[in-house]
Amino acid sequence: MNKLIGAAVVGQSGGPTAAINATLAGVIRSAFSRESGECITKLYGMRNGIEGFLDGRIVDLGEIFKNEDGTANEEKLQILSQTPAAALGSCRKKLPDPAQDEAFFDRLIEKFREHDVRYFFYIGGNDSMDTVEKLSRYIAAHDYPMRVVGLPKTIDNDLPGTDHAPGFGCAAKFIASQMQEIVRDCAVYTVPAVTIVEIMGRDAGWLTASAALPRILGGAAPDFVYLPESVFSMQAFFNDIRAAFEKKPNLVIAVSEGIRFANGTYVGEGDQSGVKDVFGHRYLAGTAKTLEDAVKREFGCKVRSVELSLTQRCAAHCASLTDLAESAAAGSAGVQAAILGATGCMIAIVRADEANGYSVSYETSEITHIANKERKVPDEFITERCNNVTDACLEYLLPLIQGEPQIIYNQGLPVHMSI
Amino acid sequence: MNKLIGAAVVGQSGGPTAAINATLAGVIRSAFSRESGECITKLYGMRNGIEGFLDGRIVDLGEIFKNEDGTANEEKLQILSQTPAAALGSCRKKLPDPAQDEAFFDRLIEKFREHDVRYFFYIGGNDSMDTVEKLSRYIAAHDYPMRVVGLPKTIDNDLPGTDHAPGFGCAAKFIASQMQEIVRDCAVYTVPAVTIVEIMGRDAGWLTASAALPRILGGAAPDFVYLPESVFSMQAFFNDIRAAFEKKPNLVIAVSEGIRFANGTYVGEGDQSGVKDVFGHRYLAGTAKTLEDAVKREFGCKVRSVELSLTQRCAAHCASLTDLAESAAAGSAGVQAAILGATGCMIAIVRADEANGYSVSYETSEITHIANKERKVPDEFITERCNNVTDACLEYLLPLIQGEPQIIYNQGLPVHMSI
Repeated sequence: MNKLIGAAVVGQSGGPTAAINATLAGVIRSAFSRESGECITKLYGMRNGIEGFLDGRIVDLGEIFKNEDGTANEEKLQILSQTPAAALGSCRKKLPDPAQDEAFFDRLIEKFREHDVRYFFYIGGNDSMDTVEKLSRYIAAHDYPMRVVGLPKTIDNDLPGTDHAPGFGCAAKFIASQMQEIVRDCAVYTVPAVTIVEIMGRDAGWLTASAALPRILGGAAPDFVYLPESVFSMQAFFNDIRAAFEKKPNLVIAVSEGIRFANGTYVGEGDQSGVKDVFGHRYLAGTAKTLEDAVKREFGCKVRSVELSLTQRCAAHCASLTDLAESAAAGSAGVQAAILGATGCMIAIVRADEANGYSVSYETSEITHIANKERKVPDEFITERCNNVTDACLEYLLPLIQGEPQIIYNQGLPVHMSI
Repeated sequence: MNKLIGAAVVGQSGGPTAAINATLAGVIRSAFSRESGECITKLYGMRNGIEGFLDGRIVDLGEIFKNEDGTANEEKLQILSQTPAAALGSCRKKLPDPAQDEAFFDRLIEKFREHDVRYFFYIGGNDSMDTVEKLSRYIAAHDYPMRVVGLPKTIDNDLPGTDHAPGFGCAAKFIASQMQEIVRDCAVYTVPAVTIVEIMGRDAGWLTASAALPRILGGAAPDFVYLPESVFSMQAFFNDIRAAFEKKPNLVIAVSEGIRFANGTYVGEGDQSGVKDVFGHRYLAGTAKTLEDAVKREFGCKVRSVELSLTQRCAAHCASLTDLAESAAAGSAGVQAAILGATGCMIAIVRADEANGYSVSYETSEITHIANKERKVPDEFITERCNNVTDACLEYLLPLIQGEPQIIYNQGLPVHMSI
């Protein structure tokens, strides 16, 4: 393999997570190592992903993160790692097909050439891997030597080709932590009440499954968990609640935002109530809100809905040390793999046989097997009645939330950084 | 003062907090101390407050929290302190007026006599202090020697007679932590967007004010903060947004659930949209949701609403060490004061002159000055345009969120306990 010498550029794309900056820190750490220095001459960050890069908005990360001796400033990298959301900014740009719009890619290559960029690292989820795939495909067919490597990131954990995705563990830990707090909160009164908690994950139920984690540790867990992988039936839902009320007055239920009826419509589409606003637009009440109304009508009891919303994807104050460490390691692995010649791939986390406890390694996974595909919760992780997850599911999830980082605080609040 | 010898009973009442169990731990610690042992012969916990006590549902806390040598089991008290919500359960019972319903209080006294209860500790907020006031009033006029002491607790921080209330600091720290995460989350894209975060506090804006705390530390803070203490004007709100959009594309706004229009109606009452459900019931969309719809119509940009909901009052995983310590100290102070003769009072936190830094002491405050009254955010803590809080407000709040407890974890989740 020829040694490729030139600049590298790194970008962040898609939704924010609590760990995406740990991956950026991993890229920076590795790019500024002595070994990489022979190949990577400079490291640029794209602002707002490929979109900002096209507009020439880049930042020289060496100016921010390099010590005088050329090594990476570990103190700054630690603050970066505990900063939620994408420090470089993000975008949701879908690239055209290289076969349809060569001009677009020519423009991109021109930008790369301008800064002698030979390494392209893109941290993101399914859509971002589509960018990696298209760019790799174009590069392979044209005379511009550059290595293009995707670095996985998604709270949804729906990226194929990897055991799990960086960013997911932090979100799962926060959701599990909040759930056991919410279940305790709801248990203080004796009046019959149902609390419905809506969790992100439009098509894959991994985050919602995490709500059940306290169960395997003997903690306070939700009574039912409904994933988008199963068809949702209002009648079965009512039956579950009715049966549970026989045993206790306070029920807590976790639902994915993406649960759907047998006819394919989302529960949260508001068809249940038929409510429209003054302009005649259908009122998009949200999944938990729709279920709140339905349960209120059916049971006449106190019902509350809680939407974890944005907080679940950026809760760096409740990060998983395992996830942060793996996110950084995936970033470093990407740089190392690219230097050794890898391109057109994503770094995948491979879980070793757990006979000797949990451990992972990092491999490259061909990007064509990943882009635009989704990994859903498999059948064996969902109970027969489709109203909870199995212990096997929780055993898969549990290692991902292990450990708490030593967060640096300033007068009571975690310290974050802007780039 | 006569030495009063007998059993003590402690209850929790009103809404859950992340620190109410720390106060319970303080009561237990102090009641089981050698000094108290001469007066307090036993310590009972009421299940579900005064309501459960009336049904005879009590628990002997000595059986759970005493070591063999009679001292308190500190390990268990630590787990109790980091457990959110009310470990003894809670209730929302309003006692009748002693002058109107003597029979009710006679029944209560009978229960006290049955267990030789001579000390009554009640941990709660405004409504719970009403219970303390009524019970004290009845006792004072009848021949049953018992000392009745209220221990403050409310995330709303609206209890009069105390500088601040136990439980508030934890909620404030969580809200401030989440706000700086949400602001970072919302800043990753370049498209114009407004995110509206709804925070608890129907009549007092202390919690919503806490959302601005990151500002005083140079962190990411919301652009605007609207409290229920000021009249809310949709036009002024739109003007604020319009002016802010001139400077940046991403706006984050914190609003109290209790903001009201000049005519006194709550913004969240849904009058804005006139939306009704299929049964003709007015749709209670919530404050943030109502504003989301209004901003969408006015500006046509991306708008999101986030309701922190239950999570803000039970987030023990993000507790303030200062609040936990003060909550426990207030519990201990209550026991000590009662032994020395105090009754018909609440323990108040008194903040010393801050010339030498933040410090507090604990005093008794007459219950008649507290019950059924509310302490609101004063004018000097609100900016002139009523769209944010002043630095003086943040300086008042900042000491209350200081420090992080060493939480005991089991495989990635905080350990909680049930009683």
